[in-house]
Formats: sequence, C-alpha cells, structure tokens
Amino acid sequence: MTLIECVPNFSEGRRPEVVDEIVAAIAAVDGVSVLDRQSDAVHNRSVITFAGQDAAVAEGAFRGVEAAVRLIDLTRHEGAHPRMGAADVVPFVPLKGEDIAVCVDVAHAVGARVARELGVPVFFYEDAARREDRRNLAAVREGQFEGLREAIGKDPARAPDEGAPAVHPTAGATAVGARAPLIAYNINLATRDLGLAQDIARAIRERDGGLPKVKALGLALEDCVQVSMNLTDYRVTSMQTVFDAVQVRAVQAGVEIRESEVVGLLPQDALVGLARSVLKATNFSAGQVLEARILDTLL
Amino acid sequence: MTLIECVPNFSEGRRPEVVDEIVAAIAAVDGVSVLDRQSDAVHNRSVITFAGQDAAVAEGAFRGVEAAVRLIDLTRHEGAHPRMGAADVVPFVPLKGEDIAVCVDVAHAVGARVARELGVPVFFYEDAARREDRRNLAAVREGQFEGLREAIGKDPARAPDEGAPAVHPTAGATAVGARAPLIAYNINLATRDLGLAQDIARAIRERDGGLPKVKALGLALEDCVQVSMNLTDYRVTSMQTVFDAVQVRAVQAGVEIRESEVVGLLPQDALVGLARSVLKATNFSAGQVLEARILDTLL
Repeated sequence: MTLIECVPNFSEGRRPEVVDEIVAAIAAVDGVSVLDRQSDAVHNRSVITFAGQDAAVAEGAFRGVEAAVRLIDLTRHEGAHPRMGAADVVPFVPLKGEDIAVCVDVAHAVGARVARELGVPVFFYEDAARREDRRNLAAVREGQFEGLREAIGKDPARAPDEGAPAVHPTAGATAVGARAPLIAYNINLATRDLGLAQDIARAIRERDGGLPKVKALGLALEDCVQVSMNLTDYRVTSMQTVFDAVQVRAVQAGVEIRESEVVGLLPQDALVGLARSVLKATNFSAGQVLEARILDTLL
Repeated sequence: MTLIECVPNFSEGRRPEVVDEIVAAIAAVDGVSVLDRQSDAVHNRSVITFAGQDAAVAEGAFRGVEAAVRLIDLTRHEGAHPRMGAADVVPFVPLKGEDIAVCVDVAHAVGARVARELGVPVFFYEDAARREDRRNLAAVREGQFEGLREAIGKDPARAPDEGAPAVHPTAGATAVGARAPLIAYNINLATRDLGLAQDIARAIRERDGGLPKVKALGLALEDCVQVSMNLTDYRVTSMQTVFDAVQVRAVQAGVEIRESEVVGLLPQDALVGLARSVLKATNFSAGQVLEARILDTLL
C-alpha cells in the first residue's frame, strides 16, 4: 500500500452546503484523511485536499466525483476560472517521488470507473496522459465546457480517453491526472528593488531557460521584494537548489536573503532530501523519521 | 493531546516469550504504535520503542511495567548491563522539543501509579528528576538491584521519589524519566587517520569543553574513520551544527567528509529545524508537513 494525496477541483465555490456534501462523501471512506478545503466565490470553485492509502484515496476520489456529478449543473455555472466539468480536475499526487507510477495507475482506474459508472467522459493529463498532447491541462480544457460540448463528438483530437465522445449533459467532462507534489516557495530579499526580484525570477525560471520545474515571479511586498515560486517537481529542482540560485544572484547585487517561506503543505520527502544533501547523508530515508513510522503502523 | 514516545528498558533479553508478553501488553492499548523492539542476550535486556498520544503512551507504559513486574524475577537475573528493576528505566520522550513538559507530567503520573498499584518504588531521573542529584541515571542506579536493596531503607539519600523505601522483592525499583530524543549520528571522514577522528571527537564533545549535548568518539571503520556521536538534545546542538564543526576541522587537516549517517530513528522536528536554518525559513513549522497533518487527523 502507498500513501498518496488527491487534490480535486470542483466547479462550486458559492454554495457551502454543496461543498459540504462533496467533502462528506469523500471523508466517509474509511482510511481517508481530509486535510484541507478552499472555496473561491469569484472562481466559483473549490479545492479539496485528502490523503490516505492508494485504494482508499481512489475510492474517496470516485465518491467525490459522484457527489459533484449529482449536485452541480454546469449549464448553470459561471465563474472566473476555466472549467469543463462538475468535477473539473482530479489529480493524484505521490507523497514520495518514486510513487508517481502508483498515482498513474490510480488515475487510470478511477477515470475508467467515472466514465463507466457515471457516464462522464474522462481525459487523462500530466503524468497520466495517454497522448503527449494531453499532458498540458490547458490543452485538454480548451474551449471549456461549452466548447468541448460541441467539439468532443466532431473532432477526433478531442475524443475522450475513457467514455463516449459526448459530454455528460450537466456534469461535462473530467480531467484525471497524476503529478508530482507542488511546493509553493517564496524567498524575500532585503531590498525594495522590484527590478532585482524580477530579474532573478526570470533568470531561474524554466520558461526563460532557467531551472527545470520552476515557475517564478518577482513581487513587491510591503517592505521588501519577493521571488515567488512554484516548484512543480522538487525531486528535479529542490528548495535548496533555488535558494542557492537566488542567493548567488542576490549577493552579486549586494543584497541579502531576508528569509524564505513555504506556503501551505509539503511532503516530508522534501525534508528528507534536504537532509541528504546538506548533511551528505546519502542513505538517510523517510522510514527513519519517527512520525513516518507511526503513520505506517496506523495505516 | 501531544504525540510522545516511550523507550522502556526491561531486564529480560533471553526469553523471547517474556518479551512478547510485555510487548503485547503495551500494544493492547488503543492508540499505541509499537515501533521497534531490540533484545540483547548478553545484556539480558530488551528495549521497546512505542509512541502515540500522551494518555495512550502513559497507559501503555504502565501496562508494560505491570507485565514486567509479573514476569521477571530480578533475584534470578544476571546480565552485562547494570539494572535495578524488572522494568529498569522508563523514559518518556517528546517528538517536538517544546513538549518535554508534557513528558515530565506523564513520567510523574506513571511513576506514582507504578508505586501505588504495583508496590515498586520509583526514582525520577533526567528532566523528570525532583532532586538535582537524580538527573543522572547512573547515580540513581548505583549498586544496582542488590546494592539498592540494602541501601534504600537505610540511607535517606537513596529513598525513592514514590513508594515505600523498600525494593519490590522480585521486581526491584524503576527509574522513570523524561528526556529529549537522542539522535545517533555519525560522520565518516575520507581518510584512515584514526587520530584525526579522535582529535575531532575530542574537540566537539561536551565532556571536553566542546558543543553542549554532544557525545563523540573517533572510530576506525574498514576503509575510513568515523566521528560517532550521540546528540542528546538536537534543539541545543543540531546535526547541521556538528556537521559544520566536523567539516571545518577536517578541511583544516586536508580531509573531506565522505558522508554522514543517521542511525535508527529521528523526530521529524529535527528535519523541520534543518529546513528553518538552511533555508532561513523562519516560520516553517512541522504542521506544514503533509504526513504530520495526516497523522494529526488519525490520532
């Protein structure tokens, strides 16, 4: 059994009673821990984070999608965030990098079940993609619910990976994926020079030829500037690597790093990796962390 | 509720069926996770590691002591390791440094109950000591079972903290304590110069005026030398601090650190501290680690 996480996004952010019912459907599965929920009224969208052993998380995800399909009518949905389904995206995330294959398997199994039992067509994205052009979620969701409703039966390039080539009349389609855990990581520079933060962000981000799996922006805070980042695969580029990369460039400009911050949650594995590299502790493993051992005995 | 650990040492390392029964008594408590057990026939002693919320761990410790008192006869016990009781030492250990006060309270409550319900006199040691001269376990256990049996009723300095001043006829006395988690941490140097490892060990250990809460020895391994350490309070001196201290001295001698290793388990808090210091992530907390969140929802 493998501990994994699921972070589904549902197209409802205004009716708390609907989100409550989806959360309850997920939480009712034995062995599932619901860790977080966030609703955004402008986006009219909610993000739920839950975790557990792979089989429990797969069941929880299916139950959540089932509730959303029953409760959300996309023909009456409007919001600022692009969406194509009541259960819009369902990504499975490993807590240890090497477990991504388990998440791909879970994504495929849950996706097939959603199509078969709920009549919702499913597209696989990111690491679960079966076609290279579907890795990118934006490409899968092109045209949103309304556009996909037209295209899905006509354009073979838009045919789903599971289910019939027709959207569910009220629940649309669902993207089911597998991806590495994302770490939201910011570094504050002891200066008000926004240009420096922007220059450093540009220098280190993948889009501009910098570090792989790093997205970065320069932002002005109240009394300093920030390099705000998403590390989309910390096993490829770690917090320490971006810290060092930012520090070198800041020091060249005569500026110090004031502090860094992790926003939200990160997998323990990222800390184990830090210990390995900082302490040259080559053989150190997550299984040596007391809390991880306790968790193993409880799951 | 607070997650803590207990690492009791029992005076039986040769009859596995006895150790099994003690482990079973502990594990029968709801909410207790038994993480490890080690028996040593030469020492004729077993160490059991278990964890859980404070109340469950307190109950587990009492049940373990009760089984040991019932099953082990110290008048017939011999082994290489000093001992004064069937349940010889019962230390409670916080998984987060700030929870040591909880462990002191648990130690005092369990100690009082052992004396009252089992008729075994109890001495409190380390952070649970009520007298400064009992912090050190070796002082408490002076003369072992046989010596204490004579002294306990005669010498007021040897009177127990809980219970009557007489050992239990077969189960002796028990030392109940609270202490920070110990990290067994070794650093291997890319040389066969044993003198260098011994010099560095001497320079960094507390005993010789080095870093507080650090014990260190220089050892020869097959193809390199090792500075072998116990960090008795990583909040006072961290793995990173000793790594840096060893590295500076090794580099002065023209030698590199080959690797370091953590032996056995460490609390996640030690990794959180590492992230805080290496990444200047001042506000980073254990609650941001996904696995810790899951553990919280399960306990």
